[in-house]
Amino acid sequence: MKSTLLDWFPALHWVRTYTRGSAKGDLTAAAVVTLLLIPQSMAYALLAGMPAVAGLYASVLPLVVYALMGSSTVLGPGPAALRSIMSVAAVSAVVPLGHADFVSATLALAALVGVFLLIMGALRLGFLAGFLSHPVLNGFVTASGLLIAMSQLPHVLGTPVASANAGDLHPLTLAVGAGAALGLWLGKHRLKPALRALGVPVGVADTVAKASPLWVMVLFIALSAQLGWAASGVAVVGAVPSGLPPFTLGTVLGVDLGTWQALLLPALLIAILTFVEQVSIAQSMAAKRRESIDINAEMRAMGGANLAAGLSGGFAVGASFSRTLVQAEAGARTPLVNVFTAGFLLLTALFFTPWLQALPLAVLAVTILMALGSLLDFGSFAKTWRYSRADFCAQALTFCVTLGVDLVSGLMAGVVASLMLHIWHSSRPHIATVGNVAGTEHYRNVLRHTVVTHPQILGLRPDESLFFANARFLEDHVAAAVTAQPGVRHVVLLCSAINDIDASGLQSLETIQQRLSDQGIALHLSEVKGPVMDRLQHTAFVRHLSGQVFLTHHQAVTTLLSR
Amino acid sequence: MKSTLLDWFPALHWVRTYTRGSAKGDLTAAAVVTLLLIPQSMAYALLAGMPAVAGLYASVLPLVVYALMGSSTVLGPGPAALRSIMSVAAVSAVVPLGHADFVSATLALAALVGVFLLIMGALRLGFLAGFLSHPVLNGFVTASGLLIAMSQLPHVLGTPVASANAGDLHPLTLAVGAGAALGLWLGKHRLKPALRALGVPVGVADTVAKASPLWVMVLFIALSAQLGWAASGVAVVGAVPSGLPPFTLGTVLGVDLGTWQALLLPALLIAILTFVEQVSIAQSMAAKRRESIDINAEMRAMGGANLAAGLSGGFAVGASFSRTLVQAEAGARTPLVNVFTAGFLLLTALFFTPWLQALPLAVLAVTILMALGSLLDFGSFAKTWRYSRADFCAQALTFCVTLGVDLVSGLMAGVVASLMLHIWHSSRPHIATVGNVAGTEHYRNVLRHTVVTHPQILGLRPDESLFFANARFLEDHVAAAVTAQPGVRHVVLLCSAINDIDASGLQSLETIQQRLSDQGIALHLSEVKGPVMDRLQHTAFVRHLSGQVFLTHHQAVTTLLSR
Repeated sequence: MKSTLLDWFPALHWVRTYTRGSAKGDLTAAAVVTLLLIPQSMAYALLAGMPAVAGLYASVLPLVVYALMGSSTVLGPGPAALRSIMSVAAVSAVVPLGHADFVSATLALAALVGVFLLIMGALRLGFLAGFLSHPVLNGFVTASGLLIAMSQLPHVLGTPVASANAGDLHPLTLAVGAGAALGLWLGKHRLKPALRALGVPVGVADTVAKASPLWVMVLFIALSAQLGWAASGVAVVGAVPSGLPPFTLGTVLGVDLGTWQALLLPALLIAILTFVEQVSIAQSMAAKRRESIDINAEMRAMGGANLAAGLSGGFAVGASFSRTLVQAEAGARTPLVNVFTAGFLLLTALFFTPWLQALPLAVLAVTILMALGSLLDFGSFAKTWRYSRADFCAQALTFCVTLGVDLVSGLMAGVVASLMLHIWHSSRPHIATVGNVAGTEHYRNVLRHTVVTHPQILGLRPDESLFFANARFLEDHVAAAVTAQPGVRHVVLLCSAINDIDASGLQSLETIQQRLSDQGIALHLSEVKGPVMDRLQHTAFVRHLSGQVFLTHHQAVTTLLSR
Repeated sequence: MKSTLLDWFPALHWVRTYTRGSAKGDLTAAAVVTLLLIPQSMAYALLAGMPAVAGLYASVLPLVVYALMGSSTVLGPGPAALRSIMSVAAVSAVVPLGHADFVSATLALAALVGVFLLIMGALRLGFLAGFLSHPVLNGFVTASGLLIAMSQLPHVLGTPVASANAGDLHPLTLAVGAGAALGLWLGKHRLKPALRALGVPVGVADTVAKASPLWVMVLFIALSAQLGWAASGVAVVGAVPSGLPPFTLGTVLGVDLGTWQALLLPALLIAILTFVEQVSIAQSMAAKRRESIDINAEMRAMGGANLAAGLSGGFAVGASFSRTLVQAEAGARTPLVNVFTAGFLLLTALFFTPWLQALPLAVLAVTILMALGSLLDFGSFAKTWRYSRADFCAQALTFCVTLGVDLVSGLMAGVVASLMLHIWHSSRPHIATVGNVAGTEHYRNVLRHTVVTHPQILGLRPDESLFFANARFLEDHVAAAVTAQPGVRHVVLLCSAINDIDASGLQSLETIQQRLSDQGIALHLSEVKGPVMDRLQHTAFVRHLSGQVFLTHHQAVTTLLSR
């Protein structure tokens, strides 16, 4: 009981040894991350089709829950681009964007993602992440990045979403966007050297430069309010309510059954994707710090965070690579950094929202666009093409379906294609006919080496585990090989590359043995691996084997030749 | 062009060397099989929800087409139990049994199965059979056998299908069924010894005994006609039209689009199942006769046969194990045996159908029930349970869903479960930490053997190919192993069991190398297999490897120790 509690809430471990030194590191890091999170969280809220303030809500309670349940010391959870676009895609397929029920369905989706992650963590279903191959993930993320870019362009151009007419461009909005882009670029690449040149200490210069999205935001709020941009037709955030995050359990429970059903598959996919992303970030950071993480605890923590987001007016959250890096460099020591960050965001939601009113949407859109670089990875297409045509097919299919149909279909197409290609590839394993390298006890492929063979003995080495996808191929291959070598009396399967044999593989071995017996040929095995033999030795197949099981293939050949 | 024609029609090969001896063997075998096929084909027609005469039609043109396109010398195609129950299940889900469109939808299904098999054969998609694992197939076939039995019981009991009321039993029908069962049992087990005891030559006695289903049928037709059973309430076949098989292309083309769509998935599954069954029968027979078969030709031939069935008033056909055995034992030499059988069936359809009118349905139902033994394989459940719990789960799930929901869902559930379990199993490969067996150059699992290890070197041997399902597991495992051995400077992956590395596996190796570099640890590889190294050596991963690639693990350890 107590150990379960400690398992589920790793915070109970580190909180006992928490020191003043840790507090200093965590507080500093929280302050830096807050400067980054305020504009990002609102931008990702708008991307998800939610009001800007939902970004702040999604950064309070979820961060506290993650801090209590997570095992990574530096991971930065919260709103992130990929989940926001998946959220808006999934929800708008059920409820039209702008409809009164859109917000409640988004809350329900976040809660559902949380429940899936909690279940996956509790039942240790991390293997589900295995269904998403790297190329599929890459194709999906790159296509999503393009979709995000397309969704943000109208905000920068000042055109209505549906219009692509140059006459509808809004020059002032365009100028604001260009200015914000320039500001972000200068902040990222020029601010730190400039401050250092002015004699500012390196630590301060670094922090100031990191927070440049906030400075850009403050600058443009001031300009917008001063010059009355809203009246000139620049879209702004508008009135943002002040107060605590709302308790939205009632709203979520009020969502109708049909909506829940339609959100099931997207929620499962978002949950798996969130987990994959989070573990990859957490493992990278843990490796750098020589720490270890508990994968199941991570899943449960992100599940708790998403559930909290759904119940407190937020939307689906996940790990952010950029904020995690910033947080780690700024000196975060324990997950408590997230509690401090949540506190700062809460203060923002309580007291500073009136200041946000004049913020042009174009500035937030540019914030998103400038961060897309990490999602778009076209180089990986070329790399995959060079290494594996099959993987490239899966990647290209995922990319095209994600762009051309929708995100859920794209991801599903990728998963199905990966599985099909895997089964296709496994269904035709390499099976070498082997012979003796003269003067040694080694046996090698007759096609690659000069080897000695004997007409009465056929040595075959399947270079793959035997399972349902390739079991019948082995039957066919043995049948063909025996027909091609009419004098054969003994078939010896060299099993050194067989890591596992499932029930289908076993049944195929029985079939092969039966068919060989019908032809007066004995079946032998050699070099069977320990764990494989452990399972085989109690089977009728081995008990009634027409031949023998030999420790080495050389032993098999010399014994059979001497008969 | 010419070689394609020879490929598609293997008959063009053997017809040139056809001899009088072959003709004698083929004609005898055809005569024996005909005696078996007449009652069976009509019984399976009724099982498929078709009029009895459709069984005769399904045994004429399809057999001729198979003979022209098939590569197996003895395979007996035609109506068979499994396909008939799948056909009725698939069609009745779209068109109610007894509806005017039922027959045309059944014809369309057969044609669709044929088209799928032709495509699979032309594109060499035999690997699709790999999706059906042996346990799933077993669970499905056993459940189907039970469903067939349940569908036939009302015919034997004389009750309406829906009724289970004992008061509705029809005593005379029951007596007819019991009599037919006794007759079939005597014919199978007692007739041959009895004839031999009477001095009949063994060959004749054997043939007479094999044809006992026909004798039972003839006997009961005579009794039924003589005693006027139909008037006493015994259900009989009734009027059967005489004539050539109809040309039903127009009927098939008239089927509406919605029906075609609903039949797509069932047709694909029936096609795959038909192929699996056919290849397993053909391979067994080929092995006994030391012949070889062409799998793709077999697929195309059965595709042609099914298309022919759909266009000539039949229903989905496949290979029959019992008739194949009988045909082989009776001396069939070439596929021409099927043309002769088709000729005999054609004569029956033309001239003998009036005689079939009085045949009680109970006799045909008993014919089916007595043949079910080969489908019901409960022993395989126990065997699978003992060998592999995972495979047993897939088998049990398939069995339950097939019985409890429907056949298509059952098969799909089995396929999905096999894939899930395979990914789950592959996602946690065995990874051994290896050490040196003192005084040798061998490296073994530290948990199984007494071995020498060094604190600065970590040797890991993944016992599985690296692909998307287990790529991340390796990342996590290496991370944990390195954390557990703080003094480690070199990680050596012993790759002797890695048969393949896909793009995800490659990316994971890059991630592992990056994370290890962050900790000041070098990554090395040893004993990489030839084909794996062929692909790896042009990758950025190997070019920028922090460590080296060693031919043997021993070489790796001695080199690294001497540094």
